[in-house]
Amino acid sequence: MNAGQFSAISPIDYRYFDEDVARYFSDAAYTAYKLKVELALVKALHKRGVCPQSALKEIGAACASVTPEEVYEEEKKVKHDIRALVNVIRAKVSDEAKPYVHMTATSYDINDTANAARFRDATLEIVVPSLTNFEKALIDIATREAGAVQVGRTHGQHAVPITFGYSIAGYVSRLGSSILALEDLAKELKGKFSGAVGAYNASSLFFDDPEVFEKEVLSGLGLEPVEATTQVTQPEPLVRLLAEVTITAGILANLSDDMRHLQRTEIGEVGEAFGESQVGSSTMPQKRNPINFENAKSMWKIVVSRVSLPFMDQISEHQRDLTNSASGRTYGETIAYVVSMAKRLEGTMQKLAVNHDRLSENLSRERGMIAAEPLYLILASLGHPDAHEKVRTITLSAQKNGLSLGEAAMKDTELTEYIERMTAQQKNIIADPSTYTGIAEKKAKEIALRWKKKLAL
Amino acid sequence: MNAGQFSAISPIDYRYFDEDVARYFSDAAYTAYKLKVELALVKALHKRGVCPQSALKEIGAACASVTPEEVYEEEKKVKHDIRALVNVIRAKVSDEAKPYVHMTATSYDINDTANAARFRDATLEIVVPSLTNFEKALIDIATREAGAVQVGRTHGQHAVPITFGYSIAGYVSRLGSSILALEDLAKELKGKFSGAVGAYNASSLFFDDPEVFEKEVLSGLGLEPVEATTQVTQPEPLVRLLAEVTITAGILANLSDDMRHLQRTEIGEVGEAFGESQVGSSTMPQKRNPINFENAKSMWKIVVSRVSLPFMDQISEHQRDLTNSASGRTYGETIAYVVSMAKRLEGTMQKLAVNHDRLSENLSRERGMIAAEPLYLILASLGHPDAHEKVRTITLSAQKNGLSLGEAAMKDTELTEYIERMTAQQKNIIADPSTYTGIAEKKAKEIALRWKKKLAL
Amino acid sequence: MNAGQFSAISPIDYRYFDEDVARYFSDAAYTAYKLKVELALVKALHKRGVCPQSALKEIGAACASVTPEEVYEEEKKVKHDIRALVNVIRAKVSDEAKPYVHMTATSYDINDTANAARFRDATLEIVVPSLTNFEKALIDIATREAGAVQVGRTHGQHAVPITFGYSIAGYVSRLGSSILALEDLAKELKGKFSGAVGAYNASSLFFDDPEVFEKEVLSGLGLEPVEATTQVTQPEPLVRLLAEVTITAGILANLSDDMRHLQRTEIGEVGEAFGESQVGSSTMPQKRNPINFENAKSMWKIVVSRVSLPFMDQISEHQRDLTNSASGRTYGETIAYVVSMAKRLEGTMQKLAVNHDRLSENLSRERGMIAAEPLYLILASLGHPDAHEKVRTITLSAQKNGLSLGEAAMKDTELTEYIERMTAQQKNIIADPSTYTGIAEKKAKEIALRWKKKLAL
Amino acid sequence: MNAGQFSAISPIDYRYFDEDVARYFSDAAYTAYKLKVELALVKALHKRGVCPQSALKEIGAACASVTPEEVYEEEKKVKHDIRALVNVIRAKVSDEAKPYVHMTATSYDINDTANAARFRDATLEIVVPSLTNFEKALIDIATREAGAVQVGRTHGQHAVPITFGYSIAGYVSRLGSSILALEDLAKELKGKFSGAVGAYNASSLFFDDPEVFEKEVLSGLGLEPVEATTQVTQPEPLVRLLAEVTITAGILANLSDDMRHLQRTEIGEVGEAFGESQVGSSTMPQKRNPINFENAKSMWKIVVSRVSLPFMDQISEHQRDLTNSASGRTYGETIAYVVSMAKRLEGTMQKLAVNHDRLSENLSRERGMIAAEPLYLILASLGHPDAHEKVRTITLSAQKNGLSLGEAAMKDTELTEYIERMTAQQKNIIADPSTYTGIAEKKAKEIALRWKKKLAL
Repeated sequence: MNAGQFSAISPIDYRYFDEDVARYFSDAAYTAYKLKVELALVKALHKRGVCPQSALKEIGAACASVTPEEVYEEEKKVKHDIRALVNVIRAKVSDEAKPYVHMTATSYDINDTANAARFRDATLEIVVPSLTNFEKALIDIATREAGAVQVGRTHGQHAVPITFGYSIAGYVSRLGSSILALEDLAKELKGKFSGAVGAYNASSLFFDDPEVFEKEVLSGLGLEPVEATTQVTQPEPLVRLLAEVTITAGILANLSDDMRHLQRTEIGEVGEAFGESQVGSSTMPQKRNPINFENAKSMWKIVVSRVSLPFMDQISEHQRDLTNSASGRTYGETIAYVVSMAKRLEGTMQKLAVNHDRLSENLSRERGMIAAEPLYLILASLGHPDAHEKVRTITLSAQKNGLSLGEAAMKDTELTEYIERMTAQQKNIIADPSTYTGIAEKKAKEIALRWKKKLAL
Repeated sequence: MNAGQFSAISPIDYRYFDEDVARYFSDAAYTAYKLKVELALVKALHKRGVCPQSALKEIGAACASVTPEEVYEEEKKVKHDIRALVNVIRAKVSDEAKPYVHMTATSYDINDTANAARFRDATLEIVVPSLTNFEKALIDIATREAGAVQVGRTHGQHAVPITFGYSIAGYVSRLGSSILALEDLAKELKGKFSGAVGAYNASSLFFDDPEVFEKEVLSGLGLEPVEATTQVTQPEPLVRLLAEVTITAGILANLSDDMRHLQRTEIGEVGEAFGESQVGSSTMPQKRNPINFENAKSMWKIVVSRVSLPFMDQISEHQRDLTNSASGRTYGETIAYVVSMAKRLEGTMQKLAVNHDRLSENLSRERGMIAAEPLYLILASLGHPDAHEKVRTITLSAQKNGLSLGEAAMKDTELTEYIERMTAQQKNIIADPSTYTGIAEKKAKEIALRWKKKLAL
Repeated sequence: MNAGQFSAISPIDYRYFDEDVARYFSDAAYTAYKLKVELALVKALHKRGVCPQSALKEIGAACASVTPEEVYEEEKKVKHDIRALVNVIRAKVSDEAKPYVHMTATSYDINDTANAARFRDATLEIVVPSLTNFEKALIDIATREAGAVQVGRTHGQHAVPITFGYSIAGYVSRLGSSILALEDLAKELKGKFSGAVGAYNASSLFFDDPEVFEKEVLSGLGLEPVEATTQVTQPEPLVRLLAEVTITAGILANLSDDMRHLQRTEIGEVGEAFGESQVGSSTMPQKRNPINFENAKSMWKIVVSRVSLPFMDQISEHQRDLTNSASGRTYGETIAYVVSMAKRLEGTMQKLAVNHDRLSENLSRERGMIAAEPLYLILASLGHPDAHEKVRTITLSAQKNGLSLGEAAMKDTELTEYIERMTAQQKNIIADPSTYTGIAEKKAKEIALRWKKKLAL
Repeated sequence: MNAGQFSAISPIDYRYFDEDVARYFSDAAYTAYKLKVELALVKALHKRGVCPQSALKEIGAACASVTPEEVYEEEKKVKHDIRALVNVIRAKVSDEAKPYVHMTATSYDINDTANAARFRDATLEIVVPSLTNFEKALIDIATREAGAVQVGRTHGQHAVPITFGYSIAGYVSRLGSSILALEDLAKELKGKFSGAVGAYNASSLFFDDPEVFEKEVLSGLGLEPVEATTQVTQPEPLVRLLAEVTITAGILANLSDDMRHLQRTEIGEVGEAFGESQVGSSTMPQKRNPINFENAKSMWKIVVSRVSLPFMDQISEHQRDLTNSASGRTYGETIAYVVSMAKRLEGTMQKLAVNHDRLSENLSRERGMIAAEPLYLILASLGHPDAHEKVRTITLSAQKNGLSLGEAAMKDTELTEYIERMTAQQKNIIADPSTYTGIAEKKAKEIALRWKKKLAL
């Protein structure tokens, strides 16, 4: 039996353990949710007049006192988890109350309904909030750095300028969309009370309207019923939710990669804040490593490498087999890793240092080569028949002769007639391409504001 | 250079090749879509008064005449696919028209917009229709077999009865939901005309309202613009679409597994229709193998094992790297496999033979053991304090003594007082559990009808 | 902080927790292995005369007393796991001994060497033994059931006969090969003591022969050095080991699927032994579900869905990045699941009941249709020009007319001349195809014996 | 029907099509291999005296003339690929020869044996050679650049120096090991001639020693028989081969990532050679993008995301189901992508430009901070009780005061006594850490030479 922190095999239970997540996905939490469902059933039976008030009261008290240890001990004997839970509840009530415990229910009425409730709750109460906190940190940076000009990089090569705030605004937009999708998908999780093969066989023995009875039970948990089930619920809503959780991990990992590379010694545009006594390396005392972004990237690999599992678990033979039971128990880990990523990155981004000197320095280091695009476009608009090829050859000769692109263009007599026809602003962009940022600043601010409102921050 | 059918390396290009899919995902199709985007751009330039009517006409004619072979030859020289396309168009027009070709666009304005359009079109024009045709076949079976009692199976063991129609109705419900989700997700695909780093740098040189201009270009293709981009579009909408396509494959695979097992020699409840001259085995002439369902399951494995790829492709450094280019070209294969599954299974299910004699025979073979659930529930409702355990021991003794469960229950003196208090209907269920089907028939019909309406079939 | 069993998020730390595995893969175990490496280093320094005997003694005592709790507390401060460990050791020794702790080592000299040692040990001491125990159970069945004729099934359809023992012998052969491969791959895991970037920079400051020094340190742990490293070891040997572990899971899952299906109510050829008080279903007291085989299949899905992770972790930029750190910590889980599968299946197979009556019953149920293959082959060998097609049509007419295949063949006048020329044995096979088992029995016994010897059982 | 290059759906059949690979994995190639197996069977029958010389001759001629088109047409009719092949051969021979075609064989005797032969051949004739050519290019660089000092980078941050040649030598070692593993694994692929359920049922009708007969057939293809089969071969040897192919892709991808980042504008230590007329971007004429390394990384994602497929295909129920047939046809694609990566990277690395000026410039840019490790180690060896922490604080103050680490150390009076006791070489390393390269150069040369010999280059 696992004695805790230092005995655990999965890092999600030692190094990356999070109590907030365990409140939904530990075995104790699962038991608690199953008890909620068992009690909701008895309440519905009571409302229908099937179960007397006294039995409801007894069963309510019993459910409140069940411990996971008791269930675990009973399960050793009967080798069936829900039967064990039911036995433990029944042992705590009078013979009169016993028949109402689990009445008409099959195991997966309880399990699947409990799962729907806890995945919904975990998404709305912990995943979405932790991502939203992180989103808020991004919105702050996008706003603050909306005008901070940075060289845009494609293929790791200098392209044309953007602003740092706009690059972050892109993540605001992507993550914001995903947060809204998560909320929608969490609310699509549904419960079931349709019995052993999904045909309401058992509840039909007692009620003329078993689907109405199902609704009554589930409403106690804020859930709607599934349209059609086997012994188990339809798997797809949970697959969609987990896929979207994986998508958020991808967005966080993408940002982390960007930040890691912007922290490279040669680039140095951003930096993780380091504690006074923090050690970067056990042998290289000067190191300031982007460990939080690296950690997030590594957790993303855990999450993405597991993404096929819920899709594989869609398959269950006939009215169900059990080959998705052990595997389904691991889904909470995916959520735990993503919450860990979000919390860690929130702290890291809040303290992110942006080095504006290095932004400028890097922007100007290629001596204006990044003006090649506007030069080509302006030439083309002025009627140059082969502007792209022309500028391409100028960049080559400029590099050979140690000239800036603007200088090389000015010296090229073939271009004189075009340059004379350029506007002052056009000439300015060629001479100082740091002004060639399009509408980056405006969009950064707009996007930040829009998501602040959408997410009510 | 690939000479066709027998030279191809991927089975999607020989054994499973489908011309309907190739119309969206072949290289020729991609080129055609890119030409549509290049032309939409010139039309927007024309509407703005930038590009004269004559040039538009020339470029329109040129785009109509470009062949993929020409582009391929040019790309060999310039080693850049979009530059090659642009060069080929430009070579077909006058010097006056040349500057308007690709004006202000970057490669991925064209590529990503073309991709959004073709994935949307393929989903709405081929994926959804082929799945809907299959859904229709399922609806027909669910309706026709709504009352055909079948033993429900959990863990491969006889549980309690359902109807065959209801088991199919479960798939109607799952697949129907997925079809609607696909339609929604296809419409979420968006285009971009925001330039080399997503900040509208180039278009800002020419227009005060580059975002409005972007809308004008994209409206020609029926697309909305992305809120914020880098050089490339936001990857998430396509990831969601491909995840949902994978989900549909899972539903089809689950059905296929059910049908495969129902076709087992010992079960024999359904059968694939076999052609007169069809051979089941090269050495065993008697074989009738469920090859279409097996094929679908195998294709599902292809699809599900690749599901992580688009999630991995979410990561692109800074304003983009190219490490999702080759990989992104394979996404059409996933769609092709799912279309192949849907088409094949539609044909197979339409001709599915249901063996009603075997349904009955199998249902009754365990001598009423499947009455254990209703017996336990009725006993419990009549106040038996430990009904589940009691019935469990009766089933063991019935099996030992070669009795049916009903007979064993009748002989058990401890139960006499309860049996006397049972209603006629309750007694009937214990004696003949084939009537213990809950509301299976009613639900099968309702679900079939509901989806017929929802999908306007 | 995780309080144990009921707080854990991963099922590998509650439901499927195994202390034997935790001895290698818990955080406490990892710390213990790292301490072994730190001590091996000091011993090597001592042998070289660098570190005095007194310091070695002090450090040895310190290492023996370090607790994971202490390291955890220190890491909270310095935020670096190995620095924390080193600080804790250093705090327990005199100033004279302090410099020898971790001398010339970088973190990953310790971590990677500790990992090589513990993955090797876990493989040889727990994975291979648990698989070998299971293999032994299979060998026993293959021997015992070598002659038990069973219908062979392809596509779930009756094909031609084998013996149950031979079907198990196939698994003996596959699993045996994998066990040998695991042993080889475990021994290929290597250690490193090549410093921060793999060039022996630090140890070269002190020794002329740093590669010899590395060998001396590693020999204390029974490890060889890697040929070339960065800061970290070459990832491939561990990838290969984990791939092979995943392969063993696949073999176990395949067997589990076979057993699950042979347990289907309609087939019933084998059965899991059930405890007296064991409950199969919370509502269906008669159920005897193949839960152990289902569990193994489900764990296989966990394992196989994660197989890409170590392959993804092969990539580490330049002299290393840390994006494989968190992810690498999860590898022990894969091993834990496979050990759990092996242990559980061993117990299940040892008690597997084979129902010989059902074997015979199923074999004969298709009225000799399984004689189609030998009939076709014998006809062909006797010169029939189109035997396969001929037999195919006979099987169709036999089924239509309710005849056995032998009867239908006898009645077919076209075949009379061939039948007359058949040997007695040939006629016998057509009449009673249960004798058509090739060399199944002989091979089952040979294979069982061969692996008994190879694995020294 | 697929008309070739521009109709193909998979990029492996248009953009990345490779005729060398198609010689093993096209449908035409598969047919050719199957014909080889059918002929090897008849030859073995002839050697045994079963089949007359004339029939062998006829069948040999027939096999030589079969086209994939003929088989395809026949398969449309019989819906069985091997039966179609057999029918086509039979149609080309006399009635006397007909019975010997495919005699005693089942489809998968042919298919699996053909697959073993072609995967072995493709590995030895195309995968290993293309990787070995690439390995040769790496060996040349490792040798040539063995002494080219480069800053080592961990976490993207400057660590301590290595040499560029040594960084490449690490890849030589990793890839070399993988090449040897591939050769071994290719030779482990085995054939089968054990009939429809693996028990030699059919061949036992004709031979007393069916296993010897199997050996005779397979020896014609240079293959050994599998120890035990079902209808199909053991899947594991091919899984291992494909896993190792995926491993090589990971090594290539890791190198590609390194090269991509070393090409970043700010780093610029290496560069892909660019053609005179090559275009980097459709709008940014100055761009020189690392497209070949990006392409390799992207192909790796294709390969790694599919790695679970062969592991999933390990499962085939009982004596086989067909759910690994369509999926198994895609394995050649994995090989095709890796060959494409190897060929492309070979060309790219051969022309790789190393910028030695930038190597030096980058090395010295952090003003000696990379001397922190040797400074700490030397101080520790000279008895400083807390050297790591001391040096860590010096690096912080040096950065604050704009000093090099050497300067800051010299000015720190607490260190004076230690510095006085340093050797000249030690002082030199602190002043000029570019000499702190350990044994990088020596190892680079040794490793290059060792693999040159091992691979007989």
